[in-house]
Amino acid sequence: MYIAPLDRLVTEFAKLPGIGRKSAARLAFYVLNQPQSTAQQLADAILQAKEQIHYCSICQNLTDEDPCAICSSERRDRSVICAVETPRDVIAIENTKEYTGLYHVLHGAISPMDDIGPDDIKLKELVARCADGVQEVIAATNPTVEGEATAMYIARLLKPLGIKVTRIAHGIPVGGDLEYADEITLGKAIEGRREL
Amino acid sequence: MYIAPLDRLVTEFAKLPGIGRKSAARLAFYVLNQPQSTAQQLADAILQAKEQIHYCSICQNLTDEDPCAICSSERRDRSVICAVETPRDVIAIENTKEYTGLYHVLHGAISPMDDIGPDDIKLKELVARCADGVQEVIAATNPTVEGEATAMYIARLLKPLGIKVTRIAHGIPVGGDLEYADEITLGKAIEGRREL
Repeated sequence: MYIAPLDRLVTEFAKLPGIGRKSAARLAFYVLNQPQSTAQQLADAILQAKEQIHYCSICQNLTDEDPCAICSSERRDRSVICAVETPRDVIAIENTKEYTGLYHVLHGAISPMDDIGPDDIKLKELVARCADGVQEVIAATNPTVEGEATAMYIARLLKPLGIKVTRIAHGIPVGGDLEYADEITLGKAIEGRREL
Repeated sequence: MYIAPLDRLVTEFAKLPGIGRKSAARLAFYVLNQPQSTAQQLADAILQAKEQIHYCSICQNLTDEDPCAICSSERRDRSVICAVETPRDVIAIENTKEYTGLYHVLHGAISPMDDIGPDDIKLKELVARCADGVQEVIAATNPTVEGEATAMYIARLLKPLGIKVTRIAHGIPVGGDLEYADEITLGKAIEGRREL
């Protein structure tokens, strides 16, 4: 029903997550209505991001230089590594401005259901980094079955090397309401209570 | 907070309509996780659509050939032209499979508030087409203040040339509920009643 180049563009946009064919059509018509330079910028940004961004050889985070800005920063505490599942988690933690250590991006979590074992995520690279001066690894994987399993696995791998492995706290979100918290979260919040 | 090429991609995605910075980040990370070929296809589709698609010299609809498939079709009724505001309206009407005449895309509607006058939309082109054998022009602009004004203007332009100008019917949508119809629509539905 669309002419071929338009149909192709709609199809490509519709492959993006959360974009259905109707939204894809809206995006396509928007692009057609913009000047050539806007379309060129979008296309260039896609290709350049793909071309210039790769994994940091140390922490496996996305970067356009190697090692990445965090790994090569003089101001980060090199004795702590925070292990997360995805690059987005790094950004989320950086935004808190609370953490000054290094990161390690696992690119996934152990999930036997999805056939993802310890060798399919960047665990070997984490263990290799723990040789020089690392004292603590924070297992900041998600509070899901897979994330918990991965945290346990990290603890089992690193404790024998004399490294302290900690887990981020579970509990009631700030601004949350006890009444609406699920039982498991509430249980964890009580379990993890701290003296005032 | 993002590395430069990623930030550029997020910024470009966020320029698209209905895509905020959070959604843009999701799209950007998705593209980064895809193979190079997927990113290349998306970039190519954007550039090719922009390069190959232009306005049909007759009906002003978007096309990759000139005249467009509808204008050059032997099977369309050349005595009727349906004037619409946008190329998406053509697709919507084509999808009904009810209409066999030609189209004319105005690329907008008269809107003094937005400083869009009759010369800013493709009205001259419509009048020029009405020379040869056109008997009826259907003003299928939107049922908005601007669309109505444009329809009136078309009628005023073309009636002196002996062309019948009609307006699409307003009324209760099929499957709609009288109770929830707004008063103006309901008024129009009563005004436009037809004998059974």
